[in-house]
Amino acid sequence: MKKPAPEKLSLNTATVKKQWGIAQAIEGCARHGIRGISPWRDQVAAFGLEQTARLIRTHGLTVTGLCRGGFFTAKDWLEDNRRAIGEAHVLGAQCLVLVVGGLLPESKDLHLSREKIKEGIAKILPEARQAGVPLAIEPLHPMQAAERACINTLEQALDICDALGEGIGVACDAYHVWWDPKLQEQIKRAGKKRLLAYHICDWLVPTRDLLNDRGMMGDGVIDLPKIRSWIEAAGYTGFHEVEIFSELDWWKKNPDEVLATCKQRHRDCS
Amino acid sequence: MKKPAPEKLSLNTATVKKQWGIAQAIEGCARHGIRGISPWRDQVAAFGLEQTARLIRTHGLTVTGLCRGGFFTAKDWLEDNRRAIGEAHVLGAQCLVLVVGGLLPESKDLHLSREKIKEGIAKILPEARQAGVPLAIEPLHPMQAAERACINTLEQALDICDALGEGIGVACDAYHVWWDPKLQEQIKRAGKKRLLAYHICDWLVPTRDLLNDRGMMGDGVIDLPKIRSWIEAAGYTGFHEVEIFSELDWWKKNPDEVLATCKQRHRDCS
Repeated sequence: MKKPAPEKLSLNTATVKKQWGIAQAIEGCARHGIRGISPWRDQVAAFGLEQTARLIRTHGLTVTGLCRGGFFTAKDWLEDNRRAIGEAHVLGAQCLVLVVGGLLPESKDLHLSREKIKEGIAKILPEARQAGVPLAIEPLHPMQAAERACINTLEQALDICDALGEGIGVACDAYHVWWDPKLQEQIKRAGKKRLLAYHICDWLVPTRDLLNDRGMMGDGVIDLPKIRSWIEAAGYTGFHEVEIFSELDWWKKNPDEVLATCKQRHRDCS
Repeated sequence: MKKPAPEKLSLNTATVKKQWGIAQAIEGCARHGIRGISPWRDQVAAFGLEQTARLIRTHGLTVTGLCRGGFFTAKDWLEDNRRAIGEAHVLGAQCLVLVVGGLLPESKDLHLSREKIKEGIAKILPEARQAGVPLAIEPLHPMQAAERACINTLEQALDICDALGEGIGVACDAYHVWWDPKLQEQIKRAGKKRLLAYHICDWLVPTRDLLNDRGMMGDGVIDLPKIRSWIEAAGYTGFHEVEIFSELDWWKKNPDEVLATCKQRHRDCS
């Protein structure tokens, strides 16, 4: 299989969030020749939105996504998502990633929570369109259904996209969807137009924590080249964004070493 | 919603496996008026197959399943499954539960592993039919896809059932499938004939371990009465089998207290 083009690599700043603030991450990407970046809003806020946008422009990086909007089952979701759309616009982000939220507070009603999420997305979509910010629903692994996102498969996310029309698609994160028997079929269904982002890392065996034990590409069991081949067959030509939450390993390492490893593993294992 | 009939309660012996061997579990069920039991093969082997069958008959318990056959991606899967079918026959089990196995050794090929599993099931099915032992594919939560079972949704399991014909169905474990957006639809599709077992426990928030941190009914976020209503609407009239792997909690408690709690929570929270 053809190796991925090195210039397709993007760094999701969560990968080094314990070591670096956003300015350091931007400069780190520039230093390592990583051409894409996907920042988290708390880091952007800490450094300042305009300053972040300026530093990213200075280094000519592509903002492959802003993390994150969503959490439509939480309080103040509307104002927060409006702010997120505005920030994504200022940063020139290719999409605003939606981690949609888990069950409604004190509720076990998954159906109701999912309806509430769909309504929330429908509510902010016109404003996102107006701002020129595509919304990317990120289906999260079913093990995060209760607390973080009760959209859990590409099929479910695409059903919502189909219902809502233009300006919305999906962020396909290999970590969340690799197990799905319908993955190839649903990537094809999404197509170029709805595939707004592609995230990579690896599934470790064993996985020691449900949230913060993701692996570096090549250290786990996900057949990343195969999933990339499906993404490419569907017409996706965008970046490959490395997003690794790793309390026990990568968050403890020298961040320059982390970035160098991302580059090597992107080339050889993804 | 109507409460479940107390006589529908079954104990999967894994729930108290750290405290009790199979003989104690059988006698515990009898003492607490629990009318169904689902033993694990290692416990049966330790006490003796014939002795186990005899003690279960003595107390008039229904064997709602034998755990487990499967692991079609491991070595010696054929002989092991043949033995499992024989044991299920001797015990008069209502089904042999199949935990189908994860990825093939040293492989990342999910598709190939799944094909191997399907072939394995097809291979043992005629022998299971001959022995009068229905095979129950248990879809496991996607977080266990790599190591334990790469059949992860009811839809996927039912596709295999459809391809293989008579003598095979599913074990629907609320813990593994509660998050599935297609759950109600697929339970309906399974129907009375293919719903061979129904397992219950609860999804804890947070979940501290991918394997052994299941909750007692009522302690988590699964809407068990709703799932039961779907199961019943599909025509299922069998037992409700409590299966709780709980290193941090229930495996440390007095097993009589565990059984009493199972009874109460089955009545009030499932």
